[in-house]
Amino acid sequence: MSGPGTIHGVGLGPGDRELMTVRADRLIRTARHVAYFRKAGRPGQARTIVDGMLGPDAAEIAMEYPVTTEIPVEDPRYNELLSAFYADCAARLAAIAAAGEDVVVLCEGDPFFYGSFMHLHARLEGLVPVRVVPAVTGMSGAWTATGIPITWGDDVMTVLPATLPEEELSRRMADCDALVVMKIGRNIGKVRRALTESGRLDAAWLVEFATMATQRVVPLNEAGERVTPYFSIVLVHGRGRRP
Amino acid sequence: MSGPGTIHGVGLGPGDRELMTVRADRLIRTARHVAYFRKAGRPGQARTIVDGMLGPDAAEIAMEYPVTTEIPVEDPRYNELLSAFYADCAARLAAIAAAGEDVVVLCEGDPFFYGSFMHLHARLEGLVPVRVVPAVTGMSGAWTATGIPITWGDDVMTVLPATLPEEELSRRMADCDALVVMKIGRNIGKVRRALTESGRLDAAWLVEFATMATQRVVPLNEAGERVTPYFSIVLVHGRGRRP
Repeated sequence: MSGPGTIHGVGLGPGDRELMTVRADRLIRTARHVAYFRKAGRPGQARTIVDGMLGPDAAEIAMEYPVTTEIPVEDPRYNELLSAFYADCAARLAAIAAAGEDVVVLCEGDPFFYGSFMHLHARLEGLVPVRVVPAVTGMSGAWTATGIPITWGDDVMTVLPATLPEEELSRRMADCDALVVMKIGRNIGKVRRALTESGRLDAAWLVEFATMATQRVVPLNEAGERVTPYFSIVLVHGRGRRP
Repeated sequence: MSGPGTIHGVGLGPGDRELMTVRADRLIRTARHVAYFRKAGRPGQARTIVDGMLGPDAAEIAMEYPVTTEIPVEDPRYNELLSAFYADCAARLAAIAAAGEDVVVLCEGDPFFYGSFMHLHARLEGLVPVRVVPAVTGMSGAWTATGIPITWGDDVMTVLPATLPEEELSRRMADCDALVVMKIGRNIGKVRRALTESGRLDAAWLVEFATMATQRVVPLNEAGERVTPYFSIVLVHGRGRRP
């Protein structure tokens, strides 16, 4: 009998299919089992990115979140539901690997950088072979889209989730050179206030759908007041030493 | 007459050739002119990564640094020499583009993240068409190599160049969740002291030559006292919310 299969956590990068790595491209095109997270009733961003790349015999495993924004993160039920969900997903994938077959798990961005795959990885490690393929991060896609380098020389870069309290955002925004704010979405108003308090609003950019057909790059000051997608990124470029 | 050619700043990623993007792979294999930085008398890391990928008719432009560590960064001559060097390189590439041909500039890591290409980009922008292909960063390669995710939930990540003063390193190391220290090399002793002062030494990893055949991943505590390569990375993983 041959050994267990491998579960590959494969980073898809920021969205443009040409920005996948050569390894990701090969693993996805030859995969026998392809798993991905999505919100119930939606096609799912990860699955959409690989549209047309999967082989005709690829079996798909759609892992549908039991909850997204219906229950607040602070509610203990949120944690319980998600934990049971991840355990169930991990068991499904582990069973396929135990039967000797590989699974490709599609991961938006880079799997180990604020990724959902990490929750499977933590449950699968040591149980079955797991390999991770790093990827171009969403933030790399975003700063490239602005046409301006993010860090020079001795610049310090800080990455902040917009979910943090306004006061902490503001303090940290004032204490770095280059700045990346992730998970914008409905936090955009708070991020704007924190940037104003820290004196950095005028230098901030908003990037929506980086590297995708719907990409929008705009100085945050000119972005208007509407809510932006969850995966939007706000950037302030560093201005360090340059000969 | 056709228009000017395009100068492509193409990120190579952390070093493993399979971690190049599909776009980078295609541009490099079909390039008519390939430019790269290197230290005089060395093959150059960027050029080494693409060994065997260039077409038989590709013209190579080796841009050799006039100075690396012979003159301290603080010396005004360092800046003058480098500035003249970048201006000269930019003029060479612009002349090729003006003649209607494309140039691929090989960039280690991601071009807009502490990259040398940025110094050409600043001089070429507006003069000739310039396009940048983002890439997997060296730090993504490094945290993937440790087998541990770098950021979870609301983790704050700070990226520090090891060239900063010890006191600043230490203060910032104590004030973040996930930590990436770049440009290690001969700064390793200072980085170790700053990690000790900030109470984070025990959780720190040293990654040398991430994703390459010579990759070495070791808890910093067990790394010994020797100097490490300039492109080594020190990491402390975040420990944020995880259902």
